Amino acid sequence: MAGPGGLAAFRAAQRGMSGAMNFPPGLLFRQLFEKVSYTYTYLLADAETREAIVIDPVRETADRDVRLIQDLGLKLLYAANTHVHADHVTGTGQMKKRIAGCRSVIAESSGAAADLHVRDGDTVTFGRFGLEVRATPGHTNGCVTYVLNDRSIAFTGDALLIRGCGRTDFQQGSSESLYRSVHSQIFTLPDQCLLYPAHDYTGQTVTTVGEEKRFNPRLSKLLPEFIEIMNNLNLPYPKQIDQALPANMVCGLQDIPTEWRS
Amino acid sequence: MAGPGGLAAFRAAQRGMSGAMNFPPGLLFRQLFEKVSYTYTYLLADAETREAIVIDPVRETADRDVRLIQDLGLKLLYAANTHVHADHVTGTGQMKKRIAGCRSVIAESSGAAADLHVRDGDTVTFGRFGLEVRATPGHTNGCVTYVLNDRSIAFTGDALLIRGCGRTDFQQGSSESLYRSVHSQIFTLPDQCLLYPAHDYTGQTVTTVGEEKRFNPRLSKLLPEFIEIMNNLNLPYPKQIDQALPANMVCGLQDIPTEWRS
Repeated sequence: MAGPGGLAAFRAAQRGMSGAMNFPPGLLFRQLFEKVSYTYTYLLADAETREAIVIDPVRETADRDVRLIQDLGLKLLYAANTHVHADHVTGTGQMKKRIAGCRSVIAESSGAAADLHVRDGDTVTFGRFGLEVRATPGHTNGCVTYVLNDRSIAFTGDALLIRGCGRTDFQQGSSESLYRSVHSQIFTLPDQCLLYPAHDYTGQTVTTVGEEKRFNPRLSKLLPEFIEIMNNLNLPYPKQIDQALPANMVCGLQDIPTEWRS
Repeated sequence: MAGPGGLAAFRAAQRGMSGAMNFPPGLLFRQLFEKVSYTYTYLLADAETREAIVIDPVRETADRDVRLIQDLGLKLLYAANTHVHADHVTGTGQMKKRIAGCRSVIAESSGAAADLHVRDGDTVTFGRFGLEVRATPGHTNGCVTYVLNDRSIAFTGDALLIRGCGRTDFQQGSSESLYRSVHSQIFTLPDQCLLYPAHDYTGQTVTTVGEEKRFNPRLSKLLPEFIEIMNNLNLPYPKQIDQALPANMVCGLQDIPTEWRS
């Protein structure tokens, strides 16, 4: 079969499928992978001031991440979660234990404990950059998407996965709520905005708003069909949920002395 | 332990550890992962002309890669290997079979068959971009590093891995040759140049020249110590080598009719 080119290529570009890596100047960025739960952890920093934030760290890979933060000479201000994960224990406790001044962050609506609770519209700042918090409930009721303040990059957690989305049959999940979140908070970002999810099970690392609007086999559908799809996934019970949920409801704070808790 | 900041951060920036994602404007870039052999495949394209090249595709993930190339409306010109892999079967055969006009590429010094043989100093062009071929033998005698023509990014194959390097005990490997290759062809690139390897076994995705010059536990050493380290790795026999080597010596051409071979 012929690879599309020519007119097809022109049309791809026209419909917002540029796919170019439009990172803002001076942003340090690292995508990190945890292979048991297929979780992506993201390290972002201002390359000039070295102030940094880590998104969705995993307990099992905290050593690697702390070492990298040290190698790069970064000052880690925040260890943030996109939501209360059911499939792995967060690494925020390890980050706080080993990096003085690091504060854990999670949405207030998650009901979980953390040093800093954020709400829709808040901004978490590191150096000259900021992450805007957008409430994107549906996978859980406390899910947020962090959007870089120039709207070039967003971290969607489990709300939107590459050609997929998080399940909605646990943790106050709602397929209708998830659909509305993605369409109002993520699909309204620029088509070329890079989307980095909390997981990928197929070895893909990034997508764009334009691609997912067009090719996401679930979220490109109309709402009734989406709900029908989500109601019939027949997924197994999450492996680590019984261990992960209690630990993550305190967002890593279980690992540190009581007097440190804010 | 305190995370380094302040003076340490300033020093990190000074010693070329910026780490900023300096992608050239208009470059489409996708890093893809194959979980059995821990291989990274890279898809690069000119976002305007949609002309593309894939580096180190894997046979088992060819479906995913072809689908993505189609979704993105790309015209795949080349499927290139950094070397004759011993740990997986290349996906170039599948690419050629399924995408008309796609040509396989490998170093002439590898001794492997391919549509296009490249030598040190050659440039492989896609749209407004080009990849300069740098001979970096040592892991095998036909290893090359592909360097984006603005020197912002290099694809190091198994010559340089993140905080590591490829083994030198098979396929005409030579630790002395590898050391000289990395120091003369990769460590001479700008400190901020992003380095993308053919594998990572720890969930890391990218590094920089500045970081590896400083933190690579093998290649930051002097040559005699490096040779000593490489002589004492005691690695197991590569799992897929007996299947992979014969297949990769024809660079995927085994999958297509004889009359197609150039």
